[in-house]
Amino acid sequence: MSTGTEHDSTPDRFADDPVFAVHEGGKLSVVPTRSIDSIADLALTYTPGVARVSSAIAAEPELARRFTWAPRVVAVISDGSAVLGLGNIGPTASLPVMEGKACLFAEFGGLSAVPIVLSTNDVDAIVESVAAIAPSFGGINLEDISAPRCFEIEDRLRERLDIPVMHDDQHGTAIVVLAALRNAAKVVGRELSDLRVVVAGAGAAGVACTKILLGAGIGDIAVADSKGILHAGRSDLTPIKQWLVDNTNRAGHAGTMVDALRGADVYLGLSGGSVPESAVATMAPNCIVFSLANPIPEVDPDMAAKYAAVVATGRSDLPNQINNVLAFPGIFRGAIDAGARSITEEMKLAAAAAIADVVGDEVRADYVVPSPLDRRVAEAVAAAVGECARREGVTR
Amino acid sequence: MSTGTEHDSTPDRFADDPVFAVHEGGKLSVVPTRSIDSIADLALTYTPGVARVSSAIAAEPELARRFTWAPRVVAVISDGSAVLGLGNIGPTASLPVMEGKACLFAEFGGLSAVPIVLSTNDVDAIVESVAAIAPSFGGINLEDISAPRCFEIEDRLRERLDIPVMHDDQHGTAIVVLAALRNAAKVVGRELSDLRVVVAGAGAAGVACTKILLGAGIGDIAVADSKGILHAGRSDLTPIKQWLVDNTNRAGHAGTMVDALRGADVYLGLSGGSVPESAVATMAPNCIVFSLANPIPEVDPDMAAKYAAVVATGRSDLPNQINNVLAFPGIFRGAIDAGARSITEEMKLAAAAAIADVVGDEVRADYVVPSPLDRRVAEAVAAAVGECARREGVTR
Repeated sequence: MSTGTEHDSTPDRFADDPVFAVHEGGKLSVVPTRSIDSIADLALTYTPGVARVSSAIAAEPELARRFTWAPRVVAVISDGSAVLGLGNIGPTASLPVMEGKACLFAEFGGLSAVPIVLSTNDVDAIVESVAAIAPSFGGINLEDISAPRCFEIEDRLRERLDIPVMHDDQHGTAIVVLAALRNAAKVVGRELSDLRVVVAGAGAAGVACTKILLGAGIGDIAVADSKGILHAGRSDLTPIKQWLVDNTNRAGHAGTMVDALRGADVYLGLSGGSVPESAVATMAPNCIVFSLANPIPEVDPDMAAKYAAVVATGRSDLPNQINNVLAFPGIFRGAIDAGARSITEEMKLAAAAAIADVVGDEVRADYVVPSPLDRRVAEAVAAAVGECARREGVTR
Repeated sequence: MSTGTEHDSTPDRFADDPVFAVHEGGKLSVVPTRSIDSIADLALTYTPGVARVSSAIAAEPELARRFTWAPRVVAVISDGSAVLGLGNIGPTASLPVMEGKACLFAEFGGLSAVPIVLSTNDVDAIVESVAAIAPSFGGINLEDISAPRCFEIEDRLRERLDIPVMHDDQHGTAIVVLAALRNAAKVVGRELSDLRVVVAGAGAAGVACTKILLGAGIGDIAVADSKGILHAGRSDLTPIKQWLVDNTNRAGHAGTMVDALRGADVYLGLSGGSVPESAVATMAPNCIVFSLANPIPEVDPDMAAKYAAVVATGRSDLPNQINNVLAFPGIFRGAIDAGARSITEEMKLAAAAAIADVVGDEVRADYVVPSPLDRRVAEAVAAAVGECARREGVTR
């Protein structure tokens, strides 16, 4: 049979492009774990044998954890509304990203993952659809769903389902940022509780990073959106931004992000745009700059190095890459192996600590997070997350 | 890491059972088509490289057929409401069946397939959920959904989606029955248009078999449900049974299924229950008995052989096994390769002819359908279905 792809006779403009070559025919395949070579195989894998397995599970539902694949399958779910830096490109165009994510789940977490892209952006419809298909899966990784819908969708699905649900753009990023910041604080000899942080961006990642940093005991945080620092005098606040106002900005900043940078210990850029050198120059001595916009960091890394003791970016060609792949494969693997019904704040903190600890004593200014390819990371994260889940009693 | 399965220390009651051994840990796995061994691999499979593929698809959606896996993935969707002979066992207990089906898609059709089981039996909720996730897939195989909901769900999804949608309990069965009947008619030297058929059962399979036999030009069909032959005098008819009344039973039978068997050429059992020998004895000389209830055929096959020239069952240990696996892998493969937007009646008839033709000149009373393991079948079906789709102009 043919491969199912059809080319016409015009020159192929993708022929010599390695990115497109990797994507030819898609990046995933579903394969049976055993082959079917005989009528006997057929009778074990399918009818009539399968009926006995289904009957056993009907009588004793927990047997599904042992005799079906679902508990070890993560759905990677997106509506394509906030894909990388590309914006709302829709479900079909988001598929290569979700397939890539599924590849990383397999490669680093030893889990099967299935991209599920949605033809709707409606919050109710997304919640109902994901809840409807949930018995097919052991975990739900929400991906590239725009704020503020992503907050409500995650909250409602966490409430409704008894399997791990995590919006990775929020929590994956937050966990790796915290891991990096723990080690960066070590490099500069500071306690997390002494640090004053400016978070640029109040979208999915900005909100989650702020929450996890608060949970980790950071001294003070000022959060800026495109209109400046979030403070009580603002009249344009969504519920989540109001929550941020109520829980951040003890210093009472009310101006622009640049104003807040004066004397700050940490800049965390999650917003795109660019920060002028004159502003970076006003930060505290031995400051820390995490500038995560991709491909162009908000703070030029070379310029940042003139002022900051530690610089991290989202780029793979620079040291200290903040990459979610350090978090999500191990988090889901650990939660699933432990039979966790949810992913708690404590489990996220445990994951961040585990990532930081892989670096351990080798920590230095250009090595505050492990390489995304470091195979020790997912294993360490899974162990820490599973242990935390058992300690918290959220397992089956 | 552990396998994720947990056994306690009590003796394992499933340890020596080969059916459960085959199901340990589930029967499927999602694997990347290329491994990730370097930062360069990561940058091609995931960020930043993947952004270029997503951008290209956003600009030109048809590129998704080439650069994503979705066009070659079939969703095997069930609400667990009519699973094998087990009835409404729910989504989780139906999973082993759906995994088995996915194994057969891979093994015989070279397609990836993903089990999607649903936590709802509501028709509207099922239609909305499946439509929501449809951009993730290249085809929708509905499975083990109870009648009459299965008719409305399939109709509405076919109307709404521009990918192949097929309820296999209806059409897979119907296609293989027609293939077998074409060859059985050859064995007894009859034309399809001369045959009088009694269909026992007016559920998913009974309705679809009746429709495809009408489409193939069968002479006359009487359809019976549990209350007897469907006829115009009945006052208890659902819409689909009314349709059957309007399109069958030219002979005007109004009694029981047994009454209608007198002088009939073909008995098609899709109902369970049992047919007494005295009734089979009244059928026409050289009659044909397809008795598909599993594991106990409605007509005992040994008894049937005393009266019938051709006997077929659903059992793998007897000749002439009517097994859907002869149809669905090739049908979806052919439709998907051709870029078909739907599976039409003509495509189903073409599939039945292709299955029958694999038997070809070797046809005899105990060989009216190929073995379920015959690798030629899916290839022949795919070719016939694809050619038919192109001829009908339903391709992209």
